[in-house]
Amino acid sequence: MALIVQKYGGTSVGTPERILNVARRVIATKDAGNQVVVVVSAMSGATDSLIKLAKEISPNPSERELDVLLSTGEQTTIALTAMAMNSLGCKAVSMTGAQAGIVTDGFHTKAKIANIEPRQIHSHLDDGNVVIVAGFQGETSEGHITTLGRGGSDLTAIAIASAIEADLCQIFTDVDGVYTCDPRIVPTARKIDEICYDEMLEMASSGSKVMQSRSVEFAKKYGVLFEVRSSFNQNPGTLVQEETKDMEHVVVRGLSVEKNQAKVTITNVPDRPGTAARIFTTLATTGVIIDMIVQNVSTAGTTDISFTLNKDELPKVEASLASVIIEIGAAALIATQGVAKLSVVGIGMRSHSGVAAKLFEALSNAGINIQMISTSEIKTAVILDESKITEAANVVHAAFGLDKS
Amino acid sequence: MALIVQKYGGTSVGTPERILNVARRVIATKDAGNQVVVVVSAMSGATDSLIKLAKEISPNPSERELDVLLSTGEQTTIALTAMAMNSLGCKAVSMTGAQAGIVTDGFHTKAKIANIEPRQIHSHLDDGNVVIVAGFQGETSEGHITTLGRGGSDLTAIAIASAIEADLCQIFTDVDGVYTCDPRIVPTARKIDEICYDEMLEMASSGSKVMQSRSVEFAKKYGVLFEVRSSFNQNPGTLVQEETKDMEHVVVRGLSVEKNQAKVTITNVPDRPGTAARIFTTLATTGVIIDMIVQNVSTAGTTDISFTLNKDELPKVEASLASVIIEIGAAALIATQGVAKLSVVGIGMRSHSGVAAKLFEALSNAGINIQMISTSEIKTAVILDESKITEAANVVHAAFGLDKS
Repeated sequence: MALIVQKYGGTSVGTPERILNVARRVIATKDAGNQVVVVVSAMSGATDSLIKLAKEISPNPSERELDVLLSTGEQTTIALTAMAMNSLGCKAVSMTGAQAGIVTDGFHTKAKIANIEPRQIHSHLDDGNVVIVAGFQGETSEGHITTLGRGGSDLTAIAIASAIEADLCQIFTDVDGVYTCDPRIVPTARKIDEICYDEMLEMASSGSKVMQSRSVEFAKKYGVLFEVRSSFNQNPGTLVQEETKDMEHVVVRGLSVEKNQAKVTITNVPDRPGTAARIFTTLATTGVIIDMIVQNVSTAGTTDISFTLNKDELPKVEASLASVIIEIGAAALIATQGVAKLSVVGIGMRSHSGVAAKLFEALSNAGINIQMISTSEIKTAVILDESKITEAANVVHAAFGLDKS
Repeated sequence: MALIVQKYGGTSVGTPERILNVARRVIATKDAGNQVVVVVSAMSGATDSLIKLAKEISPNPSERELDVLLSTGEQTTIALTAMAMNSLGCKAVSMTGAQAGIVTDGFHTKAKIANIEPRQIHSHLDDGNVVIVAGFQGETSEGHITTLGRGGSDLTAIAIASAIEADLCQIFTDVDGVYTCDPRIVPTARKIDEICYDEMLEMASSGSKVMQSRSVEFAKKYGVLFEVRSSFNQNPGTLVQEETKDMEHVVVRGLSVEKNQAKVTITNVPDRPGTAARIFTTLATTGVIIDMIVQNVSTAGTTDISFTLNKDELPKVEASLASVIIEIGAAALIATQGVAKLSVVGIGMRSHSGVAAKLFEALSNAGINIQMISTSEIKTAVILDESKITEAANVVHAAFGLDKS
């Protein structure tokens, strides 16, 4: 008998009929001899409707009260899911985040899980119940309702799996798992059977938004084995786990593509201590997420500093840096839109040379110009013209043999 | 400075705009120098939508889970109301039933309040907040969410007023207060300024459904002073309180009318111990609420037993009593639909004779036949032909001078 946590997202529980389907899946897992804890999101659209209601009251609703409001979305789903289980003859009990012992800090609308007290979950499991827990929510140690922000239900599932020492955590979603590349871009992309946390993190932070990075980071930190799979079919998904020796034999695990990027270059930055810090502390105050940062060696006492970001954030960045450029004595800020990022990810590249060379050669053979390069231990990323990104992804995917099983 | 509990029903909080109006009313009460606890219902229609959703999952949803589901209705309103207060510049904090310390028994969908631990309410009040509490809900001492059934939000307000020793509990509704009779039936009916618990109970149990009897009984038991008034205007309402000496000067406080009644007579019931018990224990198992019961003296060793009930329940009663009539050796069951009940209520009638005589005379002068009579210490009720009930209410209302202030 295994102890399994299953998480179903908003699309999987979007209608009463789909909730009944989820219930049947859970019962099949239980009937196979397992104990099951189910984590559910709000029905798709429910959270948006609640936010709309709040905005009719106030353009800037109190965050404490927004959490009280939004948490009703998942509470509705747990009740309906438990009813569905019961109506199909299976013992099940719903639990809100607070009831399930999920204790968070007090940062409303983006709280972090501080601790889980799984005593009540265990007690209901011991009574033979499937336990249905509301994702995305918890309460502070003072008893205020909180929500965990984007990707919060995945995080709830991973954190509960850790707290109850589950054998496996299954994240059910609307895709079959993690792919070698987005199949809408590379039609020959294949589903990856297993991937280690660090690779998953690099894929997630590079645009393959199967899961939010924070959930993967949490799983890595506490060693939670999890599987990403589809709630609409029975195909096995992608297993995400600690890295094993075997994994290194695959040099490149997958590619990820991020569109809608912009590139900013600040030219002729005087090469003295503090200028880069001045630029990036200013950017930090804007809350804009900066991705790649590249600075090359200095010539004639100045250097160029480039970075990339989501192109929607460009106006904010240009406004905030205008005075900084004058202050530090740089020449100009050159912003380029219409670029995209292609990342090659794999823990095997740590011990195999030639990945960058093969990447550059594949792009060169296709006549695609590289505008920026950035590397980490298990990732090599390039910035390209956005109009070339589909062609680039396909030639690189083929060059690394990712289309062959 | 007074401590005031205000309760707003589903119609009063039915839209974001109405919630903002409620918030303004509450702020006016606070600005007048009071501490305020607000109890709110679900927005009108919300509970019905949730029940509809549950029925799409299962025709007989689990009652535990129905409570988890339905409690989101009030939770939505408390969040929106607190947001509205905050957006208007007033400190306010929402609390679910569980957070407010409302502990109930475990009878899901119709739980009874066992205890209120008002420590958290006091703590928020001490911090200068208006406290917004979800009506209709609580939790068991084991932490399961419960709901209180019909009229539950009124009960929450009265019970909190008692627990925090409030100076006054105001029940805001869509009528101006308790009337001498339903103004749709008697156009000259007047609002009653003050009424004692027992009179209010007789009015409530006789069809004047301004409030459920259980809330009035709770208020009586714990001596909670409350006022029933309209949320749509500033008129003072009806004060409900302990009986005072002054109140006895008014012999009749009001009339109440109950339509859609049926009368059942079981004829020639053998006059021996146990026959009445046999009939009414059988009725008790059906769950049908029996109202008036009348048995007259026995002649020739048999008697007739009559009772009234809501006419919709008649088929259930006829089916359940069919075999009992044969068993006890009674002659027949005669069911009459199309009857209505008129009750004259007032604590003053305890010390004034002639109320029944004046009632019968007024009906007689109008040529209206009395089918059944039943009296209690502060009420005289008659069963009449339903087609005569409007005329009867008007002549009796005038006969007791209720149309004069």
